Amino acid sequence: MINAQLGELGLFTDLYELTMLQAYMAERMTDTAVFTLFVRRLPDCRNFLLACGMESIPGSLEQLRFTSDDLAYLSSLQLFADDFLTWLRAFRFTGDVYAVPDGTPVFANEPILEIVAPLMQAQLVETLVMNQVHLQTVLASKGARVAAAAQGRTVVDFGARRTHGIEAAVQAARALYIAGVAATSNVLAGKLYGIPVAGTMAHSYIQAHGDERDAFRAFARTFPGTTLLVDTYDTLEGVRRVIDLVESTPGEFTVSAVRLDSGDLGALARETRRMLDAAGLQEIGIFASSGLDEHAIAELLAAGAPINGFGVGTGMAVSDDAPALDIVYKLAEYGGAGRTKLSRHKPILPGRKQLFRREEDGRAIGDAIGLAGERLDGRPLLQMTMRGGRQLSVPQGIHMVRNRAAEELARLPPDVTALARVVPPYPVRISNALERHHAQTREAVMTHRRGGRF
Amino acid sequence: MINAQLGELGLFTDLYELTMLQAYMAERMTDTAVFTLFVRRLPDCRNFLLACGMESIPGSLEQLRFTSDDLAYLSSLQLFADDFLTWLRAFRFTGDVYAVPDGTPVFANEPILEIVAPLMQAQLVETLVMNQVHLQTVLASKGARVAAAAQGRTVVDFGARRTHGIEAAVQAARALYIAGVAATSNVLAGKLYGIPVAGTMAHSYIQAHGDERDAFRAFARTFPGTTLLVDTYDTLEGVRRVIDLVESTPGEFTVSAVRLDSGDLGALARETRRMLDAAGLQEIGIFASSGLDEHAIAELLAAGAPINGFGVGTGMAVSDDAPALDIVYKLAEYGGAGRTKLSRHKPILPGRKQLFRREEDGRAIGDAIGLAGERLDGRPLLQMTMRGGRQLSVPQGIHMVRNRAAEELARLPPDVTALARVVPPYPVRISNALERHHAQTREAVMTHRRGGRF
Repeated sequence: MINAQLGELGLFTDLYELTMLQAYMAERMTDTAVFTLFVRRLPDCRNFLLACGMESIPGSLEQLRFTSDDLAYLSSLQLFADDFLTWLRAFRFTGDVYAVPDGTPVFANEPILEIVAPLMQAQLVETLVMNQVHLQTVLASKGARVAAAAQGRTVVDFGARRTHGIEAAVQAARALYIAGVAATSNVLAGKLYGIPVAGTMAHSYIQAHGDERDAFRAFARTFPGTTLLVDTYDTLEGVRRVIDLVESTPGEFTVSAVRLDSGDLGALARETRRMLDAAGLQEIGIFASSGLDEHAIAELLAAGAPINGFGVGTGMAVSDDAPALDIVYKLAEYGGAGRTKLSRHKPILPGRKQLFRREEDGRAIGDAIGLAGERLDGRPLLQMTMRGGRQLSVPQGIHMVRNRAAEELARLPPDVTALARVVPPYPVRISNALERHHAQTREAVMTHRRGGRF
Repeated sequence: MINAQLGELGLFTDLYELTMLQAYMAERMTDTAVFTLFVRRLPDCRNFLLACGMESIPGSLEQLRFTSDDLAYLSSLQLFADDFLTWLRAFRFTGDVYAVPDGTPVFANEPILEIVAPLMQAQLVETLVMNQVHLQTVLASKGARVAAAAQGRTVVDFGARRTHGIEAAVQAARALYIAGVAATSNVLAGKLYGIPVAGTMAHSYIQAHGDERDAFRAFARTFPGTTLLVDTYDTLEGVRRVIDLVESTPGEFTVSAVRLDSGDLGALARETRRMLDAAGLQEIGIFASSGLDEHAIAELLAAGAPINGFGVGTGMAVSDDAPALDIVYKLAEYGGAGRTKLSRHKPILPGRKQLFRREEDGRAIGDAIGLAGERLDGRPLLQMTMRGGRQLSVPQGIHMVRNRAAEELARLPPDVTALARVVPPYPVRISNALERHHAQTREAVMTHRRGGRF
């Protein structure tokens, strides 16, 4: 259970961060570093990512501490010197953070977040920052696809039981809501974030009654206008029972929808619609669930299935086709000098950067990654969110974030937000000045390796 | 940030649990229910699951409460009656729990955990129980494969930065350690569970220095006998530098291993080994990382790559080939009568059950699922862990759980623990008595649907 076990989060870090820090300390490497968080490659099944999770970073960094317990544990490892443990005891994050707002579409190699801080501080927070942005970006990116596939119909997050933990369930509900999902079954997420909650009954409710009719009647008595799950024994028989109950007890038994949760959802939805319409119950909707994802939803709708809303669980909530991203947090500058690696396949763009999105008639036509000081065409997307260890503004309400995400998504080219892979990918260029800085940095590294000095 | 936001976990539930509860209350459905947690089908890439996460369930259920805040939130939804909210305010779990011990291999349809409690209580905890067992079972099952592929070599969990949250990272470290992974980079997990921690340096450390030689020298001064990351600029040049430093400053510069983190790991390991051996440095080991999983490790070792240990990150820590399981929590009995569904594809075995594992010469030869009262051949695996709402024993230490898991894994047939899919699958039969009970329960459901009564 997380809340009982996780105290302060200073120790949520990889051991190598701490060993590096101790070495930096021994070497008095106290200059300012710039680290950039970005995703190296998009999964084949993603045309864009919906960046999410940056908003909570300043608050987390403000609170980052090491408790006496933490220090006693570290001491027990017999790896760390007393002066280093003393440094940790007094730790406060004093750096700056730049980030794109939650709900911003981003592409490969684009800076999502940059941290400017004394080297030890910036290095220490790598694991925490990556983990939190990764989780929500993975889920928001999946959620945006599912919401797009539903073409305006309601999608409800049913994933809480199979997310990777309780934190993941709560963060999933948030990220999916921002991405366009309409509601969640997760009550805790509803309370914490003000996300609309939804849900009515499980098969166990029907089973516990034995008699399906008794179950329907009892539930609609407690919750007039509810949604009834009709597939426990036989879907169409279940639908017939609902119609019978509405007809035999007019005004007393009211439902707004039936839920189909197994079988051929398209065929069952069509037959259910036909039966309801024949009974004059056009106002009763059809809600479908059962192993759905963006592809299944798109197929159902393309085939004309008369479904009004979808419950989507596991596939969306663990992003099963892309449960992880190639996200990295790389040293881009130290002591005022750009840093890079020499690999052609895994470039690191040196220095502090800015990301610009060009638009034409309200539609994004291409991004450019430039140096932080540059003024390129387009909207700059990275904003300062923390200065000198202080969060600059309170996080926006989730509904505002969701609205902004919807606006940003609407500005992407339609083939980018479509489910199929877009070829060629959305254009992202590197500014001339950044290209030059990159080349010079590579040159400096190579010169240095031949015996020169930075 | 989870610890700041998640309070009591009563609200970590799907909304439909609460709506069902209110309906049960209105109907005075207070009889005892049995719910069974099981996995319906194994993913194609799993021959078995290593069940994990059950140990923490009794402790969690003991603590489950609804705070005043929770009740105020629920009240604001305008779905719930005052008497129901009063019931929640006084909520205490008073049921019994039966579970297989953490680290037990299990197969499709086998009961992993059963809850026997008044219907409302047993229903309420569905989301929480499923979520926690699912997470750790997903990860332990993946970890067992990776550890098996490494054939006794050290595997270190490097996944913390890309797990689905901090809780997932901590639980991953635990589950992977139980499954045979040797250590974790996650310091928080090390502290919370006493798991060995490991890790030395990242590329950023080398980059920050500019000069790789300076970086190696400084790091080995602070951490004599460390592992050095040699691939920041050019792997074999990095290895040569390590050798030079050892040779030029004998006794002063000591390392135990070099780490390869990119490129053709097999070829680089062979050349690195050759260079180290030629320099008489047979005692320096080779540690490899970079996108590894059980298949990559098996291929490297099959090709004779001289690698002594593996750092495995994302693929293992999110179980990328099977990030979710078809785990379900189903009503199996209510008021003393078995419950089931009629679907042939998604059977629910009714009643309280027991799982038996038959062994011959210390090797498992087949399982049987029987009724709880039955005495079948083999070891019964489900144990009572909570009675009347009280945890029966303190959780075992993680090292004991790990040892028992290793013993259990060693008892499985080799083709089951191999990476390739085993055909036919490990045999799991249903006892005659349980088959009869299932048939009778189905019959009762069908009779009932034709107008009879339970």
